[in-house]
Amino acid sequence: MSALARIATFTAGGKTRYGAITDTGAIDLSGRHGGQWPTLREVIEAGALRRLAEEAAGLPVDFGLSDIAYEIPVPMPEKIICVGVNFPDRNEEYKDGQAAPSNPSLFIRFPRSFVGHGANLVRPPESPQLDYEGEIVIVIGKGGRRISEAAALDHIAALSLCNEGTIRDWVRHAKFNVTQGKNFDRTGSIGPWLVPFTGEAQIADIKLQTRVNGEVRQSDRTSRMIFSFRKIIAYISTFTTLVPGDVIVTGTPTGAGARFDPPIWLKPGDVIEVEADGIGILRNGVVDE
Amino acid sequence: MSALARIATFTAGGKTRYGAITDTGAIDLSGRHGGQWPTLREVIEAGALRRLAEEAAGLPVDFGLSDIAYEIPVPMPEKIICVGVNFPDRNEEYKDGQAAPSNPSLFIRFPRSFVGHGANLVRPPESPQLDYEGEIVIVIGKGGRRISEAAALDHIAALSLCNEGTIRDWVRHAKFNVTQGKNFDRTGSIGPWLVPFTGEAQIADIKLQTRVNGEVRQSDRTSRMIFSFRKIIAYISTFTTLVPGDVIVTGTPTGAGARFDPPIWLKPGDVIEVEADGIGILRNGVVDE
Repeated sequence: MSALARIATFTAGGKTRYGAITDTGAIDLSGRHGGQWPTLREVIEAGALRRLAEEAAGLPVDFGLSDIAYEIPVPMPEKIICVGVNFPDRNEEYKDGQAAPSNPSLFIRFPRSFVGHGANLVRPPESPQLDYEGEIVIVIGKGGRRISEAAALDHIAALSLCNEGTIRDWVRHAKFNVTQGKNFDRTGSIGPWLVPFTGEAQIADIKLQTRVNGEVRQSDRTSRMIFSFRKIIAYISTFTTLVPGDVIVTGTPTGAGARFDPPIWLKPGDVIEVEADGIGILRNGVVDE
Repeated sequence: MSALARIATFTAGGKTRYGAITDTGAIDLSGRHGGQWPTLREVIEAGALRRLAEEAAGLPVDFGLSDIAYEIPVPMPEKIICVGVNFPDRNEEYKDGQAAPSNPSLFIRFPRSFVGHGANLVRPPESPQLDYEGEIVIVIGKGGRRISEAAALDHIAALSLCNEGTIRDWVRHAKFNVTQGKNFDRTGSIGPWLVPFTGEAQIADIKLQTRVNGEVRQSDRTSRMIFSFRKIIAYISTFTTLVPGDVIVTGTPTGAGARFDPPIWLKPGDVIEVEADGIGILRNGVVDE
């Protein structure tokens, strides 16, 4: 991965922008291309993400790293679809005697349930059960319906990370569906950036790890996912047309706070890091609302 | 309800527009206000829906009814949130011995899972189990978080109808969540139009009925809903900030095709009508993909 193949959405100088992130700062690409492509969603739609990353390699930094605030990389995707129970041990944790499921469980999150890298997750007054879930994010580049598993990876534009933060008791608040526990405002995060997708080797067997205050809580490899990236894209596109910029959050390894006895919930002051090989580290604090 | 208090999104002359629907045709209001408010979402955000309806009363018809194709009224709402199991007999139908739930079950649909009034629902090749669910739709006018039940109705801009069409076997395709069975492209409908909300009497105890080929399949009254309109708005806004144009689909009475023995699924050529007092009739056919 080139150091410049990190394209982020960020706020700087009072304005939301997109650009490349280097070790020393941010190169503002929206200043150059914002008229044509207002957000990274339009950049992706135009198939221009890698081109922008290459262009950035020759440009000077516009903002220091301390002068930018990261936003979620695709600000208003048409869809954010999350996969539940996608690592072997997680299915066993449910202790319901059921074999591994034959189809992925899916739920939807709204963009406003996420913050960007570096921002604080918000623990709402309704529950102390704020929990982390580290996950790998794929962003769709080429849309389609009924995409075959063979062709599925050609539809990925970029990779990112997600802390799919959850209000655990609200996941079971009603008879069916996890919607409410997954959609409290600002309880999760996506980022820090998009890494343009270059091929299967980039995701086939990479380590995904979640740490809380430096302690490893989740650690597994993508080669152990129950539903592969190919299967997820093929399955979802069976029922809905995927479009450029769509975000798929692909499932978390065992070890969320709910699985400890007694459970360990996130609290103000905690720092959560989600890291995957070749993508980066997504880091967030926690505050009380 | 004035005959002109019906504001729709429609395609006419090769262009998507919005306007008032009379007994003889459509008055194009987007031609007059589209620069300021590109879609009904912006009209609602500006609090201008009732004003537009009043303005239309003095204007001539621009298109005949046979020259327009209805689209879903708010084309790209930030959220479409659906309430499951919201009439007493439906909870009993699950025969799981559980009492009526204390919180509404919620799931999300994407706009592309819906068509407008008059268009055909699409039965996908993956399943013959296309089913209807007639429901009342509320569209949020004034946004907010943690809206009280007392103030909840002040946040409604308009009413509409939904055939919350479902691919029944795909609702239970995975371990959790109904997402996939509720999101096949073009399997449901919203419309025909928005009726500006004028007060509680408009929804407190109205009849909601679904007919298939003229035969009554679902019929109940909103006064029997388990979760009232007030409760739904208050509950949802506990976790997510509602914004103008958000669509809430409030639950269906008993009598979907899945409840018959043997089940009766929709098939090409069927005509489904969802009707509610003072809102209108939402009518759709069915075709095979």
